[in-house]
Amino acid sequence: MATMKALVYNGNQGFALEERHIPQISFPTDAIVRLAKTTICGTDLHILHGDVPSVEPGRILGHEGLGTVETVGSAVNTFKPGDRVIISCITACSTCYYCRRSMPSHCVSGGWLLGHRIDGTQAEFVRIPHADFSLHKMPVGVDESSLVMISDILPTALECGAIGGKVQPGSSVAIIGAGPIGLSAVITSQLYSPSMIIVINRDKNRLQVAKQLGATHIVEFGPDAVQKVLDITGGRGADTVIEAAGVPATFELCQEIVAVGGTIANVGVHGSKVDLHLEKLWDKNIVITSRLVDTVTSPTLIELLASGRLIAKSLATHTFKFADMEQAYSSFASAAANKAIKMIIDFE
Amino acid sequence: MATMKALVYNGNQGFALEERHIPQISFPTDAIVRLAKTTICGTDLHILHGDVPSVEPGRILGHEGLGTVETVGSAVNTFKPGDRVIISCITACSTCYYCRRSMPSHCVSGGWLLGHRIDGTQAEFVRIPHADFSLHKMPVGVDESSLVMISDILPTALECGAIGGKVQPGSSVAIIGAGPIGLSAVITSQLYSPSMIIVINRDKNRLQVAKQLGATHIVEFGPDAVQKVLDITGGRGADTVIEAAGVPATFELCQEIVAVGGTIANVGVHGSKVDLHLEKLWDKNIVITSRLVDTVTSPTLIELLASGRLIAKSLATHTFKFADMEQAYSSFASAAANKAIKMIIDFE
Amino acid sequence: MATMKALVYNGNQGFALEERHIPQISFPTDAIVRLAKTTICGTDLHILHGDVPSVEPGRILGHEGLGTVETVGSAVNTFKPGDRVIISCITACSTCYYCRRSMPSHCVSGGWLLGHRIDGTQAEFVRIPHADFSLHKMPVGVDESSLVMISDILPTALECGAIGGKVQPGSSVAIIGAGPIGLSAVITSQLYSPSMIIVINRDKNRLQVAKQLGATHIVEFGPDAVQKVLDITGGRGADTVIEAAGVPATFELCQEIVAVGGTIANVGVHGSKVDLHLEKLWDKNIVITSRLVDTVTSPTLIELLASGRLIAKSLATHTFKFADMEQAYSSFASAAANKAIKMIIDFE
Amino acid sequence: MATMKALVYNGNQGFALEERHIPQISFPTDAIVRLAKTTICGTDLHILHGDVPSVEPGRILGHEGLGTVETVGSAVNTFKPGDRVIISCITACSTCYYCRRSMPSHCVSGGWLLGHRIDGTQAEFVRIPHADFSLHKMPVGVDESSLVMISDILPTALECGAIGGKVQPGSSVAIIGAGPIGLSAVITSQLYSPSMIIVINRDKNRLQVAKQLGATHIVEFGPDAVQKVLDITGGRGADTVIEAAGVPATFELCQEIVAVGGTIANVGVHGSKVDLHLEKLWDKNIVITSRLVDTVTSPTLIELLASGRLIAKSLATHTFKFADMEQAYSSFASAAANKAIKMIIDFE
Repeated sequence: MATMKALVYNGNQGFALEERHIPQISFPTDAIVRLAKTTICGTDLHILHGDVPSVEPGRILGHEGLGTVETVGSAVNTFKPGDRVIISCITACSTCYYCRRSMPSHCVSGGWLLGHRIDGTQAEFVRIPHADFSLHKMPVGVDESSLVMISDILPTALECGAIGGKVQPGSSVAIIGAGPIGLSAVITSQLYSPSMIIVINRDKNRLQVAKQLGATHIVEFGPDAVQKVLDITGGRGADTVIEAAGVPATFELCQEIVAVGGTIANVGVHGSKVDLHLEKLWDKNIVITSRLVDTVTSPTLIELLASGRLIAKSLATHTFKFADMEQAYSSFASAAANKAIKMIIDFE
Repeated sequence: MATMKALVYNGNQGFALEERHIPQISFPTDAIVRLAKTTICGTDLHILHGDVPSVEPGRILGHEGLGTVETVGSAVNTFKPGDRVIISCITACSTCYYCRRSMPSHCVSGGWLLGHRIDGTQAEFVRIPHADFSLHKMPVGVDESSLVMISDILPTALECGAIGGKVQPGSSVAIIGAGPIGLSAVITSQLYSPSMIIVINRDKNRLQVAKQLGATHIVEFGPDAVQKVLDITGGRGADTVIEAAGVPATFELCQEIVAVGGTIANVGVHGSKVDLHLEKLWDKNIVITSRLVDTVTSPTLIELLASGRLIAKSLATHTFKFADMEQAYSSFASAAANKAIKMIIDFE
Repeated sequence: MATMKALVYNGNQGFALEERHIPQISFPTDAIVRLAKTTICGTDLHILHGDVPSVEPGRILGHEGLGTVETVGSAVNTFKPGDRVIISCITACSTCYYCRRSMPSHCVSGGWLLGHRIDGTQAEFVRIPHADFSLHKMPVGVDESSLVMISDILPTALECGAIGGKVQPGSSVAIIGAGPIGLSAVITSQLYSPSMIIVINRDKNRLQVAKQLGATHIVEFGPDAVQKVLDITGGRGADTVIEAAGVPATFELCQEIVAVGGTIANVGVHGSKVDLHLEKLWDKNIVITSRLVDTVTSPTLIELLASGRLIAKSLATHTFKFADMEQAYSSFASAAANKAIKMIIDFE
Repeated sequence: MATMKALVYNGNQGFALEERHIPQISFPTDAIVRLAKTTICGTDLHILHGDVPSVEPGRILGHEGLGTVETVGSAVNTFKPGDRVIISCITACSTCYYCRRSMPSHCVSGGWLLGHRIDGTQAEFVRIPHADFSLHKMPVGVDESSLVMISDILPTALECGAIGGKVQPGSSVAIIGAGPIGLSAVITSQLYSPSMIIVINRDKNRLQVAKQLGATHIVEFGPDAVQKVLDITGGRGADTVIEAAGVPATFELCQEIVAVGGTIANVGVHGSKVDLHLEKLWDKNIVITSRLVDTVTSPTLIELLASGRLIAKSLATHTFKFADMEQAYSSFASAAANKAIKMIIDFE
């Protein structure tokens, strides 16, 4: 049985490139993909820190990537060996109770599986269940470093952020957090033409990047952030507040800057409960949303990248060879210091 | 200058029927309405308890009622003296920033004014600003006790509850609280044909009333309420959870019984912050809404009452003469004990 | 190879019960279903009349029915032999370009296949491609004659009629045509609580049936139908007009009775072009929709039947044994004279 | 009584600058505006040609413009003398049946009044009924030639075209007609980030202008236009087709190029009926919309111009003094030959 290199989580913050069997078709709806590019998600760091107990030691990490179809099961209709494909972080059957309600993220035999409940994409090969739904054909002529962002962060920012937050032409958007997701929210919010995008973060470099990506205003996180946002928005607050940080302090800030009639779109992964100030907000006609990415917008995002209407290239700041994967992790772990957003890992 | 009887808040939980000047047209858009019927809202009790500091002593209470137009200002186009009208609890200019965004509740020269920032409807006459927007013609042949419910509780239950909570054909609805608003939510949710309506409350009599009004399941509030709702919904929880109680314990319950992909529609008036369990809910594709009634559905509700499609008669449980207003208040203050939902106060 | 009885279209208006091979699994996503009940659609009559050239002689007819799963392909996850299932008239892969856009009716490897491009349900057994999407589990305790209506006419009336036509609480609905689809539109429109449902048809018996099913007003089709609808709607016309007849004269009527801001939902199958009076309608803020059923509401409709919220029993007016299928066709061909709506064909 | 210069329609294609009384406040909700800029609409030419019989001889033309509030009625709250304002082509009470349903265009005491049923804006002064709704404050620092486009063509293109046509991120848009409205549709469609905008027109210069404004593809109107659009859209047709020409031939083209699941948004003013090919379209899941502008997006468009997110400057191609108004009309009557889009008329 042939083997491959794979980045394996070993528990106790340990991980290493190891030799593993190449995965095989297990179900007729599976496809095996040979990876060309992958990347690292903040969630992968959380796993290493032991924050995601559903990931067991021995798991190959990674839920993002693109490559070439190697083999397909007998029920796969859309793809054939040799097809260049983007792997979606969400695997879904497309027919269950939740899939029929446009929530593939909660698919009863899918959801976030890769690098979580089954082996993932930080390996030379990966098995993709429900391939017809969970893969997307790569468009011709588009920079592959941009296409890797289709796996997770672009649909996450669009669905959980811009759409969840109901960004509208002429509206005001505040984005708290300027990591990969927050910056992707800066990019995808512009698809709906808000008149202002205010980004709030601690890191001055990240704020500058936000500005280059289209933020109209930047605000340093701190005691006077509320007042600054109110000043920028003529005292009304922001129509959409996108929470892309995931801690109680940032969720508190959301509530202080949301406009009457506005929406707080939570994208951050929270580890503890937060205060909800219904004593102040109950009559403000607000909406709060919180959701996993369903990757239902991935075909649209691919179309937008292919047409040149969406530019995501600058999200890819660093490139590593797969053999240097461990180094890529350590560099990403200090992303702000390294002015890193997303690390591109090349297999080819 | 002619005088009238009016129910006046005097501070320190005091209130009394007093003699006051009959109000006059102050602005060209005003109308003066002679009351035929009014009612008492839970909010009026909160005012008496000093919970609403924006109500100053000397204020005539009441934001619900119907009657006859007595005089109109020079800019009122829709109404003329003699017209029978329903008074909306929300007064609005219909042209400001918030009104143009369908939020009359936040009108810059309106909102909840009656019995709050200006004198209200628990009096023989009331001045209604922005009359063209804030009054509605009474349909012929409809029971007036039902029409009084158009002033506040029916649009509140429909807009903040059923619509805010996105009730859909075939979906499941849980309503926490079976006071006037909770029961109105039972009635108005049925406009969207959910397959189940579960009502949760402490009071057994109220639960029986809920059942008569269309609840498919009733659950006593208590430690096993969560499990009961899960059992009823096949383990999924409720697609819509309407919070019509307004205390931390009930908001906690909302979070435990909301389905993946569901909506919590807060209608309760909260006096303190609550816990929001984002550590459990962040990935459940949920929506939380909280809003004031905008009364934008009032014409629709009037049409539904007029056509017999909506039946609200049983919400009016007790009738008093205006001279017995103080007795009506004391009876309503012990609503559960008196099996009271809404008290109808007759002027004629 | 075992054989079965099947109703076969032979061209030239000919059809007969014939002996055919029992279908086998051809793709891993197929299921074979043993029929318990089927019914006849107006479209089947059109096929016999040669109006649907895409149906070739030798085709087993029928796209409606329910029964028991006999065998499943290796990639079918949701169903197993012995499951009682309802067959959807639309077969769909759930992953193609159109399926991802909620248009299974235009699935690139599906759509309306049964009794059209592949053999159908008027046979003892049928092969169902893409079974996970195209079958639905039968709920327990629901009348099977009602459940057969899930195959086609209930979702058609709901999706193409009530939802396409944006029926809303308190709105006015006019339905032109009182055949099985028109009457199903009477039933399904009520899920959204319009204040009036006006049914227009030539046949007085059908109008009486419409009234029993919930129509608030009935109007005989004729020269004064326009004026009658205007009178009923206070001169405004109907907010929703559902066209369930499919001829130029009825589409003309739609345009004359649609309200400013209203929607014409075309459900009828048209054989020729119609006049669109943009010279009168261009400034009336109207919407016209025309669509195939996508059967995306079938799970909801099943839930509504199971909960007793939707009653469809009276649509099934006649029952035949499968051996008497030819007689069932001839009776259905004179539906109005026979006071027939839907014929139930029993196999068991 | 003071007089002013005004452009008056005299019937029989005649019009002239005449001396007229300066209008006075007639209702408490009126405002008198001194014009600073106006422009000419294609509709004005139709009026001169006698195509709009509701315009009577003696009428001052014009429904677009901006200027300074001179006086206000006693019920006007939002504006005071000296305010710089944009005049909306739609006048509306904001409280009637249609206004409450977001259709100010059908306001029972408003709608398109200016230069139609009451005297218009091609005069030194104009009376604006329902001023609080029908005027908008001018933002500071925005080019006034762009702001004049808020009166009519920008909201028309956005509401009747881009929103009516449901332009979405990544979708394909075809716009038939490249006059002022078609070109405004090119601009406003981009607010929703379609991946392609195809403009179809006879005039090559106009097509070049369309390209400069953001069209991704241009197609000359002619026999092969259908095939070209299909080629550009990968055989699928356009998701949104905006009809901005108003003749049967262009509406025919719309039907040939609309995609399955697509929308035809009619913006053109049609003088005769058209063919609707329901025999081809009935099963294509299409939507057709046709509406007047409601100017409900005007505040949003002003915000977008103010923020620099929307650029409309190049729509203003020619400038005239009001004294040369007749010359402006004759130049606009040969707009294509003169490479004219909109003529700016200066009063100051």
